[in-house]
Amino acid sequence: MHATPAVRALVFDIFGTVVDWRSSLIREGQALGQRLGLAADWPAFADAWRAGYRPAMARVSRGELPWINIDGLHRLILDELLPRFGLESLPETERDALNRAWHRLDPWPDAVPGLTQLRQRFVLSTLSNGNVALLVNMAKRAGLPWDCVLSAELIGRYKPDLEVYRRAAQLLGFAPEQVLMVAAHPSDLMAAQQAGLKTAYIPRPAEHGPGGWMESTAGCRFDWQAPDLPALAQHLA
Amino acid sequence: MHATPAVRALVFDIFGTVVDWRSSLIREGQALGQRLGLAADWPAFADAWRAGYRPAMARVSRGELPWINIDGLHRLILDELLPRFGLESLPETERDALNRAWHRLDPWPDAVPGLTQLRQRFVLSTLSNGNVALLVNMAKRAGLPWDCVLSAELIGRYKPDLEVYRRAAQLLGFAPEQVLMVAAHPSDLMAAQQAGLKTAYIPRPAEHGPGGWMESTAGCRFDWQAPDLPALAQHLA
Repeated sequence: MHATPAVRALVFDIFGTVVDWRSSLIREGQALGQRLGLAADWPAFADAWRAGYRPAMARVSRGELPWINIDGLHRLILDELLPRFGLESLPETERDALNRAWHRLDPWPDAVPGLTQLRQRFVLSTLSNGNVALLVNMAKRAGLPWDCVLSAELIGRYKPDLEVYRRAAQLLGFAPEQVLMVAAHPSDLMAAQQAGLKTAYIPRPAEHGPGGWMESTAGCRFDWQAPDLPALAQHLA
Repeated sequence: MHATPAVRALVFDIFGTVVDWRSSLIREGQALGQRLGLAADWPAFADAWRAGYRPAMARVSRGELPWINIDGLHRLILDELLPRFGLESLPETERDALNRAWHRLDPWPDAVPGLTQLRQRFVLSTLSNGNVALLVNMAKRAGLPWDCVLSAELIGRYKPDLEVYRRAAQLLGFAPEQVLMVAAHPSDLMAAQQAGLKTAYIPRPAEHGPGGWMESTAGCRFDWQAPDLPALAQHLA
Protein backbone atom coordinates (compact mmCIF):
# COMPACT_ATOMS: atom_id res chain seq x y z
CA MET A 1 0.00 0.00 0.00
CA HIS A 2 2.88 2.33 0.93
CA ALA A 3 6.22 1.90 -0.81
CA THR A 4 8.43 3.18 2.00
CA PRO A 5 6.47 3.82 5.14
CA ALA A 6 8.24 6.30 7.37
CA VAL A 7 6.60 4.71 10.38
CA ARG A 8 9.00 4.21 13.30
CA ALA A 9 6.71 3.48 16.22
CA LEU A 10 3.40 1.69 16.68
CA VAL A 11 1.07 2.66 19.51
CA PHE A 12 -1.77 0.35 20.45
CA ASP A 13 -5.21 0.66 21.84
CA ILE A 14 -5.56 -2.15 24.36
CA PHE A 15 -9.13 -3.00 25.46
CA GLY A 16 -10.68 -4.84 22.51
CA THR A 17 -7.70 -4.36 20.19
CA VAL A 18 -5.01 -6.36 22.00
CA VAL A 19 -7.01 -8.06 24.75
CA ASP A 20 -10.42 -9.73 24.80
CA TRP A 21 -11.97 -7.96 27.79
CA ARG A 22 -15.37 -9.62 27.41
CA SER A 23 -14.37 -13.30 27.60
CA SER A 24 -11.87 -12.49 30.34
CA LEU A 25 -14.44 -10.70 32.52
CA ILE A 26 -16.96 -13.53 32.01
CA ARG A 27 -14.28 -16.03 33.07
CA GLU A 28 -13.46 -13.95 36.17
CA GLY A 29 -17.14 -13.57 37.06
CA GLN A 30 -17.85 -17.28 36.68
CA ALA A 31 -14.86 -18.19 38.87
CA LEU A 32 -16.00 -15.72 41.53
CA GLY A 33 -19.57 -17.03 41.37
CA GLN A 34 -18.41 -20.62 41.73
CA ARG A 35 -16.14 -19.77 44.65
CA LEU A 36 -18.75 -17.75 46.57
CA GLY A 37 -21.87 -19.63 45.42
CA LEU A 38 -23.28 -16.61 43.60
CA ALA A 39 -25.30 -16.82 40.42
CA ALA A 40 -25.44 -13.95 37.93
CA ASP A 41 -25.71 -13.33 34.20
CA TRP A 42 -21.96 -12.85 33.77
CA PRO A 43 -22.00 -12.01 30.04
CA ALA A 44 -24.57 -9.27 30.72
CA PHE A 45 -22.52 -8.16 33.71
CA ALA A 46 -19.36 -7.87 31.57
CA ASP A 47 -21.22 -5.88 28.93
CA ALA A 48 -22.74 -3.55 31.49
CA TRP A 49 -19.39 -2.92 33.17
CA ARG A 50 -17.77 -2.06 29.87
CA ALA A 51 -20.75 0.07 28.84
CA GLY A 52 -20.17 2.32 31.85
CA TYR A 53 -16.65 3.10 30.74
CA ARG A 54 -17.10 5.74 28.04
CA PRO A 55 -19.73 7.74 29.97
CA ALA A 56 -17.48 7.72 33.05
CA MET A 57 -14.47 8.99 31.09
CA ALA A 58 -16.65 11.61 29.44
CA ARG A 59 -17.62 12.91 32.89
CA VAL A 60 -13.91 13.32 33.69
CA SER A 61 -13.24 14.98 30.32
CA ARG A 62 -16.14 17.42 30.87
CA GLY A 63 -14.78 18.28 34.30
CA GLU A 64 -17.78 16.84 36.21
CA LEU A 65 -15.38 14.51 37.98
CA PRO A 66 -11.76 15.24 38.95
CA TRP A 67 -9.06 13.14 37.30
CA ILE A 68 -9.76 9.51 38.20
CA ASN A 69 -7.77 6.73 36.63
CA ILE A 70 -9.38 3.71 35.04
CA ASP A 71 -9.01 1.53 38.12
CA GLY A 72 -10.98 4.21 39.95
CA LEU A 73 -13.61 4.54 37.22
CA HIS A 74 -14.01 0.76 36.93
CA ARG A 75 -14.63 0.65 40.67
CA LEU A 76 -17.25 3.43 40.58
CA ILE A 77 -19.09 1.59 37.81
CA LEU A 78 -18.77 -1.75 39.61
CA ASP A 79 -20.30 -0.40 42.81
CA GLU A 80 -23.29 0.94 40.86
CA LEU A 81 -23.63 -2.31 38.97
CA LEU A 82 -23.54 -4.93 41.72
CA PRO A 83 -27.10 -4.36 43.05
CA ARG A 84 -28.50 -4.63 39.51
CA PHE A 85 -27.03 -8.13 39.28
CA GLY A 86 -28.02 -9.28 42.77
CA LEU A 87 -24.42 -9.01 43.97
CA GLU A 88 -24.79 -6.20 46.51
CA SER A 89 -23.54 -8.48 49.31
CA LEU A 90 -20.05 -8.73 47.77
CA PRO A 91 -17.61 -7.61 50.48
CA GLU A 92 -14.96 -4.93 50.01
CA THR A 93 -11.98 -7.27 49.52
CA GLU A 94 -13.89 -9.20 46.85
CA ARG A 95 -14.92 -5.99 45.11
CA ASP A 96 -11.32 -4.86 45.02
CA ALA A 97 -10.13 -8.23 43.68
CA LEU A 98 -12.88 -8.28 41.04
CA ASN A 99 -12.01 -4.74 39.98
CA ARG A 100 -8.49 -5.94 39.28
CA ALA A 101 -9.88 -8.46 36.77
CA TRP A 102 -9.09 -5.68 34.27
CA HIS A 103 -5.38 -6.27 35.05
CA ARG A 104 -5.81 -9.94 34.08
CA LEU A 105 -7.41 -9.70 30.65
CA ASP A 106 -6.29 -12.30 28.13
CA PRO A 107 -4.83 -11.24 24.79
CA TRP A 108 -6.45 -12.22 21.50
CA PRO A 109 -4.62 -15.35 20.29
CA ASP A 110 -2.76 -13.43 17.54
CA ALA A 111 -1.56 -10.61 19.80
CA VAL A 112 1.65 -11.96 21.31
CA PRO A 113 2.97 -13.52 18.05
CA GLY A 114 2.02 -10.39 16.08
CA LEU A 115 3.62 -7.98 18.55
CA THR A 116 6.74 -10.13 18.74
CA GLN A 117 7.15 -9.86 14.96
CA LEU A 118 6.40 -6.12 14.88
CA ARG A 119 8.83 -5.41 17.69
CA GLN A 120 11.75 -6.49 15.55
CA ARG A 121 11.26 -3.45 13.31
CA PHE A 122 9.35 -0.85 15.32
CA VAL A 123 9.14 0.72 18.73
CA LEU A 124 5.95 -0.66 20.32
CA SER A 125 4.00 1.15 22.99
CA THR A 126 0.59 0.96 24.55
CA LEU A 127 -1.54 4.08 24.12
CA SER A 128 -4.49 3.24 26.28
CA ASN A 129 -6.90 4.93 28.61
CA GLY A 130 -6.01 2.14 31.04
CA ASN A 131 -3.79 3.28 33.90
CA VAL A 132 -0.10 2.44 34.08
CA ALA A 133 -0.34 -0.24 36.79
CA LEU A 134 -3.15 -1.98 34.93
CA LEU A 135 -1.19 -2.00 31.67
CA VAL A 136 2.03 -3.15 33.35
CA ASN A 137 0.34 -5.96 35.28
CA MET A 138 -1.56 -7.06 32.18
CA ALA A 139 1.58 -7.12 30.04
CA LYS A 140 3.56 -9.06 32.62
CA ARG A 141 0.85 -11.70 33.01
CA ALA A 142 0.13 -12.05 29.28
CA GLY A 143 3.68 -11.64 27.98
CA LEU A 144 2.91 -8.57 25.85
CA PRO A 145 6.33 -7.36 24.68
CA TRP A 146 6.06 -3.56 24.93
CA ASP A 147 9.04 -1.25 24.57
CA CYS A 148 7.11 1.42 26.47
CA VAL A 149 3.88 1.72 28.44
CA LEU A 150 2.11 4.98 27.62
CA SER A 151 -1.23 5.75 29.20
CA ALA A 152 -3.75 8.57 29.31
CA GLU A 153 -2.89 8.63 33.01
CA LEU A 154 0.57 10.02 32.16
CA ILE A 155 -0.92 12.80 30.07
CA GLY A 156 -3.84 13.67 32.33
CA ARG A 157 -6.44 13.42 29.56
CA TYR A 158 -8.42 10.58 28.05
CA LYS A 159 -8.54 9.54 24.41
CA PRO A 160 -9.95 10.75 22.07
CA ASP A 161 -8.47 14.08 23.29
CA LEU A 162 -5.98 14.89 20.51
CA GLU A 163 -3.35 15.92 23.04
CA VAL A 164 -2.98 12.26 24.08
CA TYR A 165 -1.87 11.22 20.57
CA ARG A 166 0.38 14.25 20.03
CA ARG A 167 2.07 13.87 23.38
CA ALA A 168 2.65 10.15 22.78
CA ALA A 169 4.53 10.87 19.55
CA GLN A 170 6.55 13.59 21.27
CA LEU A 171 7.47 11.35 24.20
CA LEU A 172 8.64 8.63 21.82
CA GLY A 173 10.78 11.22 20.02
CA PHE A 174 8.99 11.02 16.68
CA ALA A 175 6.92 13.30 14.48
CA PRO A 176 3.21 12.40 14.53
CA GLU A 177 3.39 10.98 10.98
CA GLN A 178 6.13 8.56 12.08
CA VAL A 179 3.76 6.99 14.60
CA LEU A 180 1.08 4.47 13.68
CA MET A 181 -1.99 4.11 15.91
CA VAL A 182 -3.35 0.55 15.89
CA ALA A 183 -6.93 0.07 17.08
CA ALA A 184 -10.15 -1.88 16.63
CA HIS A 185 -12.21 1.30 17.04
CA PRO A 186 -12.65 3.77 14.18
CA SER A 187 -13.32 6.68 16.55
CA ASP A 188 -9.93 6.19 18.21
CA LEU A 189 -8.22 6.03 14.82
CA MET A 190 -9.99 9.12 13.48
CA ALA A 191 -8.81 11.14 16.47
CA ALA A 192 -5.25 9.84 15.98
CA GLN A 193 -5.48 10.82 12.32
CA GLN A 194 -6.61 14.31 13.26
CA ALA A 195 -3.55 14.54 15.50
CA GLY A 196 -1.35 13.65 12.52
CA LEU A 197 -0.66 9.98 13.26
CA LYS A 198 -0.95 7.15 10.74
CA THR A 199 -3.72 4.62 11.34
CA ALA A 200 -4.15 0.85 11.19
CA TYR A 201 -7.58 -0.69 11.67
CA ILE A 202 -7.77 -4.21 13.11
CA PRO A 203 -11.45 -5.17 13.23
CA ARG A 204 -12.31 -7.40 16.18
CA PRO A 205 -15.78 -8.72 15.32
CA ALA A 206 -15.88 -10.86 18.48
CA GLU A 207 -15.16 -7.95 20.84
CA HIS A 208 -18.77 -7.63 22.00
CA GLY A 209 -19.48 -11.36 21.77
CA PRO A 210 -20.92 -13.54 19.00
CA GLY A 211 -22.89 -11.37 16.59
CA GLY A 212 -22.14 -8.38 18.78
CA TRP A 213 -22.00 -4.69 17.97
CA MET A 214 -19.13 -3.10 16.06
CA GLU A 215 -18.41 0.60 15.69
CA SER A 216 -19.19 1.77 12.15
CA THR A 217 -16.37 2.61 9.74
CA ALA A 218 -18.64 4.77 7.56
CA GLY A 219 -16.70 7.73 6.23
CA CYS A 220 -13.38 6.49 7.66
CA ARG A 221 -10.17 6.00 5.71
CA PHE A 222 -7.28 4.18 7.33
CA ASP A 223 -3.67 3.93 6.16
CA TRP A 224 -3.66 0.20 6.81
CA GLN A 225 -6.22 -2.46 7.62
CA ALA A 226 -5.53 -6.06 8.60
CA PRO A 227 -7.52 -8.92 10.15
CA ASP A 228 -4.95 -9.43 12.91
CA LEU A 229 -1.52 -8.33 14.11
CA PRO A 230 0.63 -10.86 12.20
CA ALA A 231 -1.16 -9.72 9.03
CA LEU A 232 -0.36 -6.11 9.92
CA ALA A 233 3.30 -7.10 10.35
CA GLN A 234 3.21 -8.54 6.84
CA HIS A 235 1.66 -5.36 5.40
CA LEU A 236 4.37 -3.24 7.03
CA ALA A 237 7.24 -5.54 6.04
CA MET B 1 18.81 -9.14 55.79
CA HIS B 2 14.99 -8.97 55.57
CA ALA B 3 13.01 -12.12 56.26
CA THR B 4 10.03 -11.38 54.04
CA PRO B 5 10.55 -8.28 51.97
CA ALA B 6 7.26 -6.72 50.95
CA VAL B 7 8.95 -5.28 47.88
CA ARG B 8 6.88 -5.69 44.72
CA ALA B 9 8.58 -3.36 42.23
CA LEU B 10 12.15 -2.26 41.58
CA VAL B 11 12.85 1.12 40.01
CA PHE B 12 16.28 1.82 38.61
CA ASP B 13 18.51 4.79 38.17
CA ILE B 14 20.04 4.40 34.72
CA PHE B 15 23.11 6.57 34.00
CA GLY B 16 25.96 4.94 35.95
CA THR B 17 23.78 2.34 37.64
CA VAL B 18 22.59 0.28 34.67
CA VAL B 19 24.69 1.72 31.83
CA ASP B 20 28.34 2.75 31.60
CA TRP B 21 27.92 6.24 30.14
CA ARG B 22 31.63 7.09 30.27
CA SER B 23 33.06 4.22 28.19
CA SER B 24 30.15 4.50 25.78
CA LEU B 25 30.65 8.24 25.19
CA ILE B 26 34.41 7.73 24.72
CA ARG B 27 33.68 5.02 22.16
CA GLU B 28 31.22 7.30 20.33
CA GLY B 29 33.67 10.21 20.38
CA GLN B 30 36.55 8.12 19.07
CA ALA B 31 34.39 6.73 16.25
CA LEU B 32 33.29 10.25 15.31
CA GLY B 33 36.89 11.51 15.44
CA GLN B 34 38.10 8.71 13.23
CA ARG B 35 35.31 9.24 10.71
CA LEU B 36 35.75 13.02 10.46
CA GLY B 37 39.50 13.17 11.12
CA LEU B 38 39.07 15.11 14.37
CA ALA B 39 41.33 14.69 17.38
CA ALA B 40 40.15 15.44 20.91
CA ASP B 41 40.65 14.24 24.46
CA TRP B 42 37.54 12.06 24.40
CA PRO B 43 37.72 10.86 28.03
CA ALA B 44 37.91 14.48 29.20
CA PHE B 45 35.13 15.35 26.78
CA ALA B 46 32.89 12.59 28.20
CA ASP B 47 33.59 13.75 31.75
CA ALA B 48 32.88 17.38 30.92
CA TRP B 49 29.61 16.51 29.17
CA ARG B 50 28.43 14.51 32.14
CA ALA B 51 29.62 17.20 34.58
CA GLY B 52 27.27 19.70 32.94
CA TYR B 53 24.27 17.52 33.66
CA ARG B 54 23.49 18.19 37.31
CA PRO B 55 23.96 21.97 37.06
CA ALA B 56 21.70 22.07 34.00
CA MET B 57 18.94 20.10 35.76
CA ALA B 58 19.32 22.30 38.82
CA ARG B 59 18.65 25.36 36.62
CA VAL B 60 15.39 23.74 35.48
CA SER B 61 14.46 22.78 39.05
CA ARG B 62 15.11 26.38 40.24
CA GLY B 63 12.93 27.72 37.44
CA GLU B 64 15.78 29.54 35.65
CA LEU B 65 15.04 27.43 32.60
CA PRO B 66 11.62 26.15 31.48
CA TRP B 67 11.12 22.38 31.41
CA ILE B 68 13.72 20.94 29.05
CA ASN B 69 14.13 17.20 28.74
CA ILE B 70 17.52 15.51 28.97
CA ASP B 71 18.02 15.37 25.21
CA GLY B 72 17.58 19.14 25.24
CA LEU B 73 19.89 19.67 28.21
CA HIS B 74 22.56 17.37 26.74
CA ARG B 75 22.42 19.44 23.57
CA LEU B 76 22.77 22.77 25.43
CA ILE B 77 25.81 21.41 27.27
CA LEU B 78 27.28 19.94 24.08
CA ASP B 79 27.06 23.24 22.22
CA GLU B 80 28.89 25.00 25.06
CA LEU B 81 31.49 22.24 25.21
CA LEU B 82 32.52 21.81 21.58
CA PRO B 83 34.67 24.97 21.33
CA ARG B 84 36.55 23.98 24.50
CA PHE B 85 37.60 20.75 22.78
CA GLY B 86 38.44 22.28 19.39
CA LEU B 87 35.28 20.81 17.86
CA GLU B 88 33.39 24.02 17.06
CA SER B 89 33.31 23.14 13.35
CA LEU B 90 31.05 20.13 13.94
CA PRO B 91 27.99 20.63 11.70
CA GLU B 92 24.40 20.50 12.93
CA THR B 93 23.60 16.97 11.72
CA GLU B 94 26.74 15.63 13.44
CA ARG B 95 25.89 17.47 16.65
CA ASP B 96 22.43 15.96 16.62
CA ALA B 97 23.82 12.47 15.98
CA LEU B 98 26.45 12.87 18.71
CA ASN B 99 23.81 14.09 21.16
CA ARG B 100 21.95 10.84 20.56
CA ALA B 101 25.00 8.91 21.79
CA TRP B 102 23.16 9.00 25.11
CA HIS B 103 20.51 6.75 23.52
CA ARG B 104 23.24 4.22 22.69
CA LEU B 105 24.93 3.71 26.04
CA ASP B 106 26.11 0.18 26.78
CA PRO B 107 24.93 -1.62 29.92
CA TRP B 108 27.37 -2.80 32.58
CA PRO B 109 28.07 -6.49 31.82
CA ASP B 110 25.97 -7.70 34.77
CA ALA B 111 22.92 -5.56 33.95
CA VAL B 112 20.98 -7.68 31.43
CA PRO B 113 21.48 -11.00 33.28
CA GLY B 114 20.67 -9.37 36.62
CA LEU B 115 17.53 -7.64 35.35
CA THR B 116 16.40 -10.83 33.62
CA GLN B 117 16.59 -12.69 36.93
CA LEU B 118 14.90 -9.90 38.91
CA ARG B 119 12.10 -9.59 36.38
CA GLN B 120 10.87 -13.09 37.21
CA ARG B 121 9.81 -11.92 40.66
CA PHE B 122 9.34 -8.16 40.50
CA VAL B 123 7.92 -5.41 38.34
CA LEU B 124 10.96 -3.60 36.89
CA SER B 125 10.89 0.02 35.79
CA THR B 126 13.36 2.72 34.96
CA LEU B 127 13.19 5.80 37.19
CA SER B 128 15.59 8.09 35.44
CA ASN B 129 16.00 11.74 34.65
CA GLY B 130 16.59 10.58 31.07
CA ASN B 131 13.69 11.29 28.75
CA VAL B 132 11.31 8.59 27.55
CA ALA B 133 12.64 8.33 23.98
CA LEU B 134 16.21 8.04 25.26
CA LEU B 135 15.27 5.29 27.72
CA VAL B 136 13.19 3.39 25.16
CA ASN B 137 15.87 3.55 22.46
CA MET B 138 18.55 2.55 24.94
CA ALA B 139 16.55 -0.43 26.21
CA LYS B 140 15.74 -1.64 22.72
CA ARG B 141 19.38 -1.47 21.60
CA ALA B 142 20.80 -3.01 24.78
CA GLY B 143 18.04 -5.54 25.49
CA LEU B 144 17.15 -4.14 28.91
CA PRO B 145 13.97 -6.02 29.90
CA TRP B 146 11.82 -3.31 31.52
CA ASP B 147 8.18 -3.83 32.40
CA CYS B 148 7.71 -0.06 32.37
CA VAL B 149 9.67 3.03 31.38
CA LEU B 150 9.20 5.79 33.95
CA SER B 151 11.01 9.07 33.54
CA ALA B 152 11.22 12.45 35.22
CA GLU B 153 9.86 13.72 31.90
CA LEU B 154 6.50 12.09 32.69
CA ILE B 155 6.32 13.77 36.07
CA GLY B 156 7.65 17.18 35.04
CA ARG B 157 10.30 17.29 37.78
CA TYR B 158 13.82 15.99 38.09
CA LYS B 159 15.20 13.67 40.74
CA PRO B 160 15.98 14.20 43.58
CA ASP B 161 12.59 15.97 43.84
CA LEU B 162 10.66 13.66 46.18
CA GLU B 163 7.55 13.91 44.03
CA VAL B 164 9.32 11.86 41.34
CA TYR B 165 9.71 8.85 43.66
CA ARG B 166 6.24 9.15 45.18
CA ARG B 167 4.56 9.45 41.82
CA ALA B 168 6.49 6.45 40.45
CA ALA B 169 5.16 4.24 43.26
CA GLN B 170 1.64 5.55 42.72
CA LEU B 171 1.77 4.95 38.95
CA LEU B 172 2.95 1.37 39.52
CA GLY B 173 0.04 0.87 41.92
CA PHE B 174 2.13 0.25 45.03
CA ALA B 175 2.72 1.91 48.37
CA PRO B 176 6.14 3.63 48.55
CA GLU B 177 7.51 0.94 50.88
CA GLN B 178 6.66 -1.74 48.33
CA VAL B 179 9.01 -0.10 45.84
CA LEU B 180 12.78 -0.50 45.90
CA MET B 181 14.96 2.20 44.34
CA VAL B 182 18.20 0.77 42.92
CA ALA B 183 21.04 3.21 42.29
CA ALA B 184 24.79 3.72 42.33
CA HIS B 185 24.37 7.19 43.84
CA PRO B 186 23.70 7.67 47.55
CA SER B 187 22.04 11.06 46.99
CA ASP B 188 19.41 9.46 44.74
CA LEU B 189 18.80 6.71 47.29
CA MET B 190 18.53 9.11 50.22
CA ALA B 191 15.85 11.10 48.39
CA ALA B 192 13.99 7.86 47.57
CA GLN B 193 14.22 6.89 51.24
CA GLN B 194 12.79 10.24 52.28
CA ALA B 195 9.88 9.59 49.92
CA GLY B 196 9.25 6.26 51.69
CA LEU B 197 10.84 3.86 49.19
CA LYS B 198 13.23 1.05 50.06
CA THR B 199 16.81 1.42 48.84
CA ALA B 200 19.47 -0.79 47.25
CA TYR B 201 22.97 0.56 46.71
CA ILE B 202 25.00 -0.88 43.84
CA PRO B 203 28.41 0.81 43.93
CA ARG B 204 29.90 1.31 40.48
CA PRO B 205 33.55 2.18 41.20
CA ALA B 206 34.38 2.38 37.47
CA GLU B 207 31.61 4.91 36.69
CA HIS B 208 33.99 7.86 36.48
CA GLY B 209 36.85 5.84 35.04
CA PRO B 210 39.78 4.00 36.66
CA GLY B 211 40.41 5.43 40.11
CA GLY B 212 37.62 7.92 39.49
CA TRP B 213 35.41 9.79 41.90
CA MET B 214 32.58 8.16 43.82
CA GLU B 215 29.82 9.88 45.76
CA SER B 216 30.33 9.44 49.50
CA THR B 217 28.09 7.11 51.48
CA ALA B 218 28.90 8.82 54.78
CA GLY B 219 25.83 8.89 57.02
CA CYS B 220 23.78 6.76 54.59
CA ARG B 221 21.94 3.57 55.47
CA PHE B 222 20.54 1.42 52.70
CA ASP B 223 18.11 -1.50 52.96
CA TRP B 224 20.26 -3.57 50.64
CA GLN B 225 23.72 -3.31 49.12
CA ALA B 226 25.21 -5.57 46.45
CA PRO B 227 28.19 -5.44 44.10
CA ASP B 228 26.04 -6.02 41.03
CA LEU B 229 22.49 -6.84 39.92
CA PRO B 230 22.71 -10.67 40.00
CA ALA B 231 23.97 -10.37 43.58
CA LEU B 232 21.00 -8.12 44.38
CA ALA B 233 18.69 -10.78 42.89
CA GLN B 234 20.25 -13.30 45.27
CA HIS B 235 19.77 -11.01 48.28
CA LEU B 236 16.11 -10.55 47.40
CA ALA B 237 15.47 -14.24 46.66
